[in-house]
Amino acid sequence: MKIRLGQLNTTIGDLEGNFELIKKAMNDAENSSVDLLILPELVVCGYPPMDLLERPQFLDAVYDINERIIGHTKNASPVLFGTVTPNTAKSGRKCYNSAILADGGEVSAVVNKALLPTYDVYDELRYFEPANTFECINFKGRKLGITVCEDIWHNFELSYLSYDVNPVKELAEAGAEAICNVSASPYAQNKPAKRQKMLQQHARKWNIPVFYANQVGGNTELVSDGDSMAIDADGDLVSRCALFEEDFTDLYWEEKEPTLRSESNDTVEVPIPIAQMFKGIKVGLRDYLKKTAISDKVILGLSGGIDSALVATIAVEALGKANVVGITMPSEFSSEGSISDSEKLAENLGIPCHELPIGEVYNQFNELLNPFFKDTDFGVAEENLQPRIRGTLLMAYSNKFGHMLLNTGNKSELATGYCTLYGDMSGGLGIIADLYKTEVYEMAHWLNNEYFNETVIPKNILEKPPSAELRPDQKDADSLPEYEVLDAILKAYIEDQASVEDITDRGYDSTVVKQIVVLVDNMEYKRFQAAPALKMSSKAFGTGRRVPIVQGWTDNRR
Amino acid sequence: MKIRLGQLNTTIGDLEGNFELIKKAMNDAENSSVDLLILPELVVCGYPPMDLLERPQFLDAVYDINERIIGHTKNASPVLFGTVTPNTAKSGRKCYNSAILADGGEVSAVVNKALLPTYDVYDELRYFEPANTFECINFKGRKLGITVCEDIWHNFELSYLSYDVNPVKELAEAGAEAICNVSASPYAQNKPAKRQKMLQQHARKWNIPVFYANQVGGNTELVSDGDSMAIDADGDLVSRCALFEEDFTDLYWEEKEPTLRSESNDTVEVPIPIAQMFKGIKVGLRDYLKKTAISDKVILGLSGGIDSALVATIAVEALGKANVVGITMPSEFSSEGSISDSEKLAENLGIPCHELPIGEVYNQFNELLNPFFKDTDFGVAEENLQPRIRGTLLMAYSNKFGHMLLNTGNKSELATGYCTLYGDMSGGLGIIADLYKTEVYEMAHWLNNEYFNETVIPKNILEKPPSAELRPDQKDADSLPEYEVLDAILKAYIEDQASVEDITDRGYDSTVVKQIVVLVDNMEYKRFQAAPALKMSSKAFGTGRRVPIVQGWTDNRR
Repeated sequence: MKIRLGQLNTTIGDLEGNFELIKKAMNDAENSSVDLLILPELVVCGYPPMDLLERPQFLDAVYDINERIIGHTKNASPVLFGTVTPNTAKSGRKCYNSAILADGGEVSAVVNKALLPTYDVYDELRYFEPANTFECINFKGRKLGITVCEDIWHNFELSYLSYDVNPVKELAEAGAEAICNVSASPYAQNKPAKRQKMLQQHARKWNIPVFYANQVGGNTELVSDGDSMAIDADGDLVSRCALFEEDFTDLYWEEKEPTLRSESNDTVEVPIPIAQMFKGIKVGLRDYLKKTAISDKVILGLSGGIDSALVATIAVEALGKANVVGITMPSEFSSEGSISDSEKLAENLGIPCHELPIGEVYNQFNELLNPFFKDTDFGVAEENLQPRIRGTLLMAYSNKFGHMLLNTGNKSELATGYCTLYGDMSGGLGIIADLYKTEVYEMAHWLNNEYFNETVIPKNILEKPPSAELRPDQKDADSLPEYEVLDAILKAYIEDQASVEDITDRGYDSTVVKQIVVLVDNMEYKRFQAAPALKMSSKAFGTGRRVPIVQGWTDNRR
Repeated sequence: MKIRLGQLNTTIGDLEGNFELIKKAMNDAENSSVDLLILPELVVCGYPPMDLLERPQFLDAVYDINERIIGHTKNASPVLFGTVTPNTAKSGRKCYNSAILADGGEVSAVVNKALLPTYDVYDELRYFEPANTFECINFKGRKLGITVCEDIWHNFELSYLSYDVNPVKELAEAGAEAICNVSASPYAQNKPAKRQKMLQQHARKWNIPVFYANQVGGNTELVSDGDSMAIDADGDLVSRCALFEEDFTDLYWEEKEPTLRSESNDTVEVPIPIAQMFKGIKVGLRDYLKKTAISDKVILGLSGGIDSALVATIAVEALGKANVVGITMPSEFSSEGSISDSEKLAENLGIPCHELPIGEVYNQFNELLNPFFKDTDFGVAEENLQPRIRGTLLMAYSNKFGHMLLNTGNKSELATGYCTLYGDMSGGLGIIADLYKTEVYEMAHWLNNEYFNETVIPKNILEKPPSAELRPDQKDADSLPEYEVLDAILKAYIEDQASVEDITDRGYDSTVVKQIVVLVDNMEYKRFQAAPALKMSSKAFGTGRRVPIVQGWTDNRR
């Protein structure tokens, strides 16, 4: 039996476009004599469709595409695909998150998802009714255990809750000869290794092969990495698709040994996490522009610092140098290097670096505000004026020429509020907003040392002490601990849900820890208005982390 | 039996502060010989606590307060209160949303919520394990049917899903002699009337009284209206607390007729919806400032238009005139009335109206951008420069003196994107962002005619055609249909989930409908970065409406 795993890059809600992708994959499979094509979860409507699922006319349109896919199996390979199906019972939610197995123009089976993740970025119990029965599906003489995404992750490294049913166990005990999983699993740091380990555990425990087909591509904040793979009954990886690209892999599943072999034996090697994230961000940015059709081009402010340098570099790799415009906007507080380092970077990347000095506008603002400000000291008002003038200039350029403004903020800044609302927090998409400052450096060094093998990001940018340059001789280290310490505390608090006591026990000064934790809590109001940010970590700011702005929990602060 | 319903204004996460409120209510009840004090849902931690519930140390702190409340019933009245309790089973989510009945220092009963709303602004299945058994609680010889919030709303005007268990029915059939409900129900337009109808249906159907105690006060975007009430076995309203205020009401529940009577017979009259919303917005603003401790004072831009006029008026009523600062920022495109109408309004309200003309700064920006813009026509870039300059000035004032900037946008603008990111979309809180433009006018007229009984909002502001005044002779009606038409289409699309066809069938031009629907869909990216907005409608932008930015659903667009 020849099985093809296909990781498609669908667009949420673009039902006709997605149907074309699916049909092409089905036709190609037919041409390659594939016996079963396995496509991702919700491949018809893209994932996550969110509240589109509440619109009856949207559901009807999805159901219509389901019929067209089923009908197309008259002329193409059988297909197992993820989609929405109606719940016809009187009670419960209106639909299921399902996998349909179609063959010869007919439905062979509809399997509904049982474990509906409702934590972090997931809201599936908002929309879908969970299944609670498990049955193997007979297909060409084999018994398939069909599962949808989370069904296969049952309690694997899950801290939020513990599911009381285990779909893989149910199906294996019912005699499944293989587990098939259709997924729409977004990337998080180092997820490919975890995913492989999880799939291998199932294969070894039940001594059956596992076929895993996952969505690929960017959808606003979430980027799916694909990473579709097949594991044999011994738990060995037989084949794996490329990360963050549309890809397919063919498997021969036989009764005799070796029961599972790949056609090409070209199992893709998984790169190191920083390289995974680089590729994920590239795809996330590219897909955001392509799928929204906002623009082919981006603009960003170049400060001479590491964040904007990394964003510019990724943008050039993602979109091509012809589609990236840099603007340097020096003030009286800017260092010499602010301009020269930006120019050097732009030269290395082959992009323009326009100069718009903000001094005159800044002075004009100060003059206008002088009647109110004249008896006050220079402070945060004057500091924030500068990034707001810069944001206004960049948005003017964006509005005039249609380039989307890239946000250049990082996670350490967003966590501590070391950034200015409506200033440097502006932008259509935050592409490094889920990278801590230390990861920003790590990626920049990796780019120079491993990816480019030359100094594309100028040495001076990598080596100078980080500074917002909003007042004379300002350094980040004046307000914040060193980034190694800061990021470790932030990661413990945000990603591990550690308490002040826990973090202090890890060897950090309790005063510093308290200070940072209070900052993170108090800056919720800024993050509420932050640009959408590509999620790269296990816990990103945004939809996966829902903390009230108005809240008085003081336990951590004492 | 003397029962007291208490609607407290708790702060999310402020466990010690909430405990003080609860203890005081318990002591007061004891002093009034109350037999049972009923307090709202999650009164210990406030509602909605969101992801604070994922922090183990937060849960432990809540459990600790539970014990202190229980202990305090040694010296005070028995109390039925909503809180979080642990789920000690091996599987499922970590906790329950519960009501604890405590008496004489002991727990008499713990009842867990069965229906966990997971739609609109609610995410309860993200956190809580649902109960699936129902039992009446014996208390002083009576059988109480205890329920938590949604339990009592079972399928009442619910379009998202249909629950298959009905807690009130289960309890009534098990012999409940009264239904008690602890709630944390946020306000939505005309909800008091719906709520009363729903409670009366239960009372009539089962011929037993209903006691309903609801949270009151603002928590970021949600404002709970309280509206605690008691309905007798005939379905008649016996007593009702004030809307949007901390309030208590005492009931005598006897074996003999009349079985239920209120001590004071002072059932509060429910005002008309526009007046409800006015009060809700006032409380939402006041509580946002008080509970975040951000500032006592607010600043806002006065454009001479109706939106800023209404926001200024509400702010003065909520915070007092000494705490509101208006700034008018005319440009060359501003009408005569922009300044004079703003000044007149400020005079009527007794607040300052500072003038900061933006012409010079605007010219300076244009000069700076001239190398890029010189061969282009005046357009959206030049238009947006103006609100961004104004936003920057307002934020500078805010940063300097600590006043929070009030956002002045309305729902019609947010829906259509007729607003500027980082410009007039700036602000800490959008207090009229869930009012359509027609509702803005309605509230302004109501304020003059009914509330003040004098022309506080100048006639000229009420009568001039709405305009953004960003280019010569601009009027809203140049870009948008008349607001009566626009708002009807928006309401149908956003609140009723109506399709283009549905809306056209209601008598609107299909070209206009399509145009508006496409605008709403395409402007998701702007709303993503909008200020938090006080929810006043049944479907507000923000956390209750989750639509992907990147999506290609075209069904509505054809």
